[in-house]
Amino acid sequence: MIIVMGTPGAGKTTVLTEASKDRKGWKIVNYGDLMFEIAKEKKLANSRDELRKLHISKQREIQTAVAEKLAAMKGNLILDTHCSINTPAGYYPGLPNSLLSKLKVDGLVLVTASLEDIAARRKKDATRVRDEQNAEALAEHLRINEAMLSAYSVLSGAPVIIIQNTNGKLDVAVDRLVSFLDSFKG
Amino acid sequence: MIIVMGTPGAGKTTVLTEASKDRKGWKIVNYGDLMFEIAKEKKLANSRDELRKLHISKQREIQTAVAEKLAAMKGNLILDTHCSINTPAGYYPGLPNSLLSKLKVDGLVLVTASLEDIAARRKKDATRVRDEQNAEALAEHLRINEAMLSAYSVLSGAPVIIIQNTNGKLDVAVDRLVSFLDSFKG
Amino acid sequence: MIIVMGTPGAGKTTVLTEASKDRKGWKIVNYGDLMFEIAKEKKLANSRDELRKLHISKQREIQTAVAEKLAAMKGNLILDTHCSINTPAGYYPGLPNSLLSKLKVDGLVLVTASLEDIAARRKKDATRVRDEQNAEALAEHLRINEAMLSAYSVLSGAPVIIIQNTNGKLDVAVDRLVSFLDSFKG
Repeated sequence: MIIVMGTPGAGKTTVLTEASKDRKGWKIVNYGDLMFEIAKEKKLANSRDELRKLHISKQREIQTAVAEKLAAMKGNLILDTHCSINTPAGYYPGLPNSLLSKLKVDGLVLVTASLEDIAARRKKDATRVRDEQNAEALAEHLRINEAMLSAYSVLSGAPVIIIQNTNGKLDVAVDRLVSFLDSFKG
Repeated sequence: MIIVMGTPGAGKTTVLTEASKDRKGWKIVNYGDLMFEIAKEKKLANSRDELRKLHISKQREIQTAVAEKLAAMKGNLILDTHCSINTPAGYYPGLPNSLLSKLKVDGLVLVTASLEDIAARRKKDATRVRDEQNAEALAEHLRINEAMLSAYSVLSGAPVIIIQNTNGKLDVAVDRLVSFLDSFKG
Repeated sequence: MIIVMGTPGAGKTTVLTEASKDRKGWKIVNYGDLMFEIAKEKKLANSRDELRKLHISKQREIQTAVAEKLAAMKGNLILDTHCSINTPAGYYPGLPNSLLSKLKVDGLVLVTASLEDIAARRKKDATRVRDEQNAEALAEHLRINEAMLSAYSVLSGAPVIIIQNTNGKLDVAVDRLVSFLDSFKG
């Protein structure tokens, strides 16, 4: 399993979609979709924003169910998730050790971008709730992402890459992800 | 349990004292006080500075005793401690995994401030021994703090917030801590 | 056991060699040499560069054998290794938790230097393959190193120091390492 993470506005989904076009062997699983699916089944949330604002004990209950579902999946998986999630109650790790220790992780990818590129993309995307207002808060979030990414790598033993998804250079970011995926074939 | 951490000079104690005035449900426990209490009982140290300079094996012995005491405490606790401790023999993690894994942590708070604010406050406070001499060493300590904080979050699954305690804006820092505490009520 | 880590070009080996001249009680073990020795025995690699490019499953197999060998060694050991290893397939942690958890670590040392000093030293040293081409990539590597170092400290409970090995000030770096080693005597 490869885990691909990113901050909202870093363009993770675009990079991932483009990269997977040429790589049919990989199945993409979205962590947030799995969380939301299970939250709906358990009647804990009706929207993604409600889900993000749930009490920590409920979040943990859902995460445990997701971890079990993921650990049981077969084949070459790409898990699409957040590195850390910025909620009103603080940054939550996207891969807490209680989840990470249940998964067999082969590689960790963080898709990121410059502060300017992320801010510009967020302005355009008014359809999703964005919590971070200014450059300082965003810079802090990116630092936390890198530090958590490093902790995930130490705990799992899996290698990490950080992909810069610069405006106008999507092809470079996609190529980097494709070559990373190719290094795990077989 | 909520854990509130800070670098000397970040104003952690002030923020914590102000925030707890309005929040009677929380009991504050100071980790250093507990360490010192146990070190005195074991006749290992007579002052806090002696305690900080103890050999690592003695520090670990005391930490184990503190962890057991903390794990046995009831109610809504705020643990007041360091994120990392800068000793002559290096930075020690305030929450090594041997301690962290024994605690049920709901939230992690780092109180910090700009290099300028911390340096200015340390100059005023001549009553405590301060090991860091210059801006570069302090910047390094703050980076280590953020990275360790992120590792604590990954290991415990608990969310983190970083509170900037800017000179002249204590009320903003206090409000942030109060709203964080309130998100864990019940 | 003390673990001394560094980025290629930081001058770790020089600092370590100088520091150990005066400290006869310590035995230096090079992790890469141990890895290569075992890789050759298992007929998995004929050169250090081949070793670095091995598939993750083979790397892990070798690491397990090295961990067992290290855990069985007696006396005051200095383990000479990388903090993170920059391979074509991403940064690998030098001390993944699967290895770290098998060792009894007393102290963690990162030898580092400014971007300029590292770049200049790498230019001179054309005898080894260097993967990092530019300042941005190197800065990223140094940030990952500090974050992984912090995670190692949290997991092991061992203190960390970061030694700046500045051009023309080798004696300062050596003195720092000597005094760190001395704090663990006995």
